Amino acid sequence: MDILNSLITTNDKKILLIVIDGLGGLPRPCVQERDLPNDGKTELETADTPNLDKLAKYSSLGLTVPVDIGITPGSGPAHLALFGYDPIKNQIGRGVLEAVGVGLEIGPDDLCVRANIATIQKGIITDRRAGRISTNENQRLCHSLSAEIKTIDDVQIIIRAGKGHRFVVVFRGKDLSPNLTESDPQKDNRKPIKISPLTPDAARSAKIVNLFLEKVLEIIRYETPANYILLRGFALNPNVKPMSEVYKIKPAAIATYPMYKGIARLVGMTVLEVGDTWESEIDTLKKHRDEYNFFYLHFKEVDMSGEDGDFDGKVKLIEKFDTLLPEILKLNFDVVTITSDHSTPAVLKGHSWHPNPFLLHSPYARQDGLDCFCEKSCAKGSLGLFPQTKVMSLLLASSLKLKKFGA
Amino acid sequence: MDILNSLITTNDKKILLIVIDGLGGLPRPCVQERDLPNDGKTELETADTPNLDKLAKYSSLGLTVPVDIGITPGSGPAHLALFGYDPIKNQIGRGVLEAVGVGLEIGPDDLCVRANIATIQKGIITDRRAGRISTNENQRLCHSLSAEIKTIDDVQIIIRAGKGHRFVVVFRGKDLSPNLTESDPQKDNRKPIKISPLTPDAARSAKIVNLFLEKVLEIIRYETPANYILLRGFALNPNVKPMSEVYKIKPAAIATYPMYKGIARLVGMTVLEVGDTWESEIDTLKKHRDEYNFFYLHFKEVDMSGEDGDFDGKVKLIEKFDTLLPEILKLNFDVVTITSDHSTPAVLKGHSWHPNPFLLHSPYARQDGLDCFCEKSCAKGSLGLFPQTKVMSLLLASSLKLKKFGA
Repeated sequence: MDILNSLITTNDKKILLIVIDGLGGLPRPCVQERDLPNDGKTELETADTPNLDKLAKYSSLGLTVPVDIGITPGSGPAHLALFGYDPIKNQIGRGVLEAVGVGLEIGPDDLCVRANIATIQKGIITDRRAGRISTNENQRLCHSLSAEIKTIDDVQIIIRAGKGHRFVVVFRGKDLSPNLTESDPQKDNRKPIKISPLTPDAARSAKIVNLFLEKVLEIIRYETPANYILLRGFALNPNVKPMSEVYKIKPAAIATYPMYKGIARLVGMTVLEVGDTWESEIDTLKKHRDEYNFFYLHFKEVDMSGEDGDFDGKVKLIEKFDTLLPEILKLNFDVVTITSDHSTPAVLKGHSWHPNPFLLHSPYARQDGLDCFCEKSCAKGSLGLFPQTKVMSLLLASSLKLKKFGA
Repeated sequence: MDILNSLITTNDKKILLIVIDGLGGLPRPCVQERDLPNDGKTELETADTPNLDKLAKYSSLGLTVPVDIGITPGSGPAHLALFGYDPIKNQIGRGVLEAVGVGLEIGPDDLCVRANIATIQKGIITDRRAGRISTNENQRLCHSLSAEIKTIDDVQIIIRAGKGHRFVVVFRGKDLSPNLTESDPQKDNRKPIKISPLTPDAARSAKIVNLFLEKVLEIIRYETPANYILLRGFALNPNVKPMSEVYKIKPAAIATYPMYKGIARLVGMTVLEVGDTWESEIDTLKKHRDEYNFFYLHFKEVDMSGEDGDFDGKVKLIEKFDTLLPEILKLNFDVVTITSDHSTPAVLKGHSWHPNPFLLHSPYARQDGLDCFCEKSCAKGSLGLFPQTKVMSLLLASSLKLKKFGA
């Protein structure tokens, strides 16, 4: 990254990075014997995508490896890699991801942690999810906790409800440490674990977290079944250098889901106001086109259909994206990339290690002349199989934002 | 490189590395809207190259990345990578490149620097190029400077004119340091900058360079407009291990332009006598075929047409190379590789970050059976997309100069 940094120059050329979350896939499961296979087509290969296929013909194709061969990334590392940050050196802790996921803005000194609302009886956790209490119940509890616990020992306490039994606590103060044991015993019918410092510099943090726990339990001890909380995933803001500084660009993010807005904020993007639909995302892109020279445009639902194991639903969503593509291309970005953070094959009902289809369109990208945008043609593309952390270098080069190295 | 080194064995098999400078390209610019694209063909894809295409069919193809994805290399790093040297660890400074570019042989302790002949008035540089004085004028000045300044404080001074207002100074002595400020203020109508040491060990070098400047100014102060010189790009010989030692081969270079002869000399090749034309280069190859077992054969002009933005000219030069290829193949080298140092697309009028087409022909190379030598088929080749620094390993292996690793 040091060499890249030394070569960066600035211009007005505009980069559009389209992320179709969980785009890459796998063929449907074989219903018959192994030697009587299915049609071998992934969700993307099954989808009818005339606009993507036309664009692919005049673009460079390739496949990106999010973290390493065989490694299935979470959304945090997959996006960090896509934005050019080493996902192994820069880890976004679970607490931070959860905090940005519920829409909190994380300051540089914030210690974040996930909380589960649980049930305790005679000192034993009998249900780690308090009977999977409703989000409404959760919100009611979080409101009353927020109203009664504002600060502890100069540390500001921020509480925000998530879904079901989960909420987030942010400890905003100085010199806090995430090196703490977690209170969650991981299985029911065990005692909660006392939170203790793992390193000497975490002693004060342990004291504050334990004081916080005491106060919470005073307030909820007579609730049923939500009479306890378990804390896990303590994490500090990773404090990565903002993209504006690393790449000397003016970056903006367009995403409908809080976690992606949150990750974008962590790497220093301006998160633009947007509605709930893909159409509203494109409207936002149109509206702000002239104000930024880098856009991260995130489409979430494809990943969700993959997580649900809904092959046909994923195909339909990819087809829907295809119908919206011409509208996007009309905006005349200098560099357009269409890719994903990670693959989410319906057959796996979850993220996977498979590389991401990658398309690069620019007057300065080779035109591979391949006839569709899918995993098979991307495997034949001129960009080859390459690390996801190199995507930003390619986008900067293709928008002529990198000077020559050496004479 | 350490493992490679431990495996090297010697034999008489002959390797020919053909470098068509700036070979890789891009399609012509779109003259119409983005949705009415061009034919997608690069210069190499446009050229009619029956001999290259025939050879490609029986060869392994691939694409090489000179320095890293998205990074546009200068000629120095691109060639170092091709010769198997890490271009980031081994940087050839501007002064050294300029010195070898004007045909100077650089010794191990030489401090090299570029000089601009400039105009100064009342202490202000009014023209950094002295009205772009002629090469003849430059040569006259350099002759008189050479005649009058031979040594300073035991350091030998070597002066050689370049083109226009540029010349090179080599300080030949012991313990010289390039850690000096440069005197060039980079813009007209500023004062020249005093040359000072950037590190304590550069104090003596600063003193010598300043004494040199004083002597020069005494000699040229009454010239018009060439009454000042600006120095920049101080650099020492990078002193890389010679290829003969690293690879246990006997390497020779055939190139018509001084810079490439110079780079070849820096990595320890014998530079063979040659005329100005491609035909004379091939004659030299024929003449010395039996004396060496590694030849670097460099064809320059393709790069120049790219730099000029002359798409059709570049196509014609590639076609010219194709007509000469059978003559070269008749010489029966055991391994023939055709590739480039970096791409120079006419549309960019300069070097680019795009990977280089790469062809490897040997009885021990797989035959990919692809139907042409171009960027598109190289993208599909069995060698894939690979780092340029690995080319030498492949050439040594294909000439059976590498033993087995491990048992």
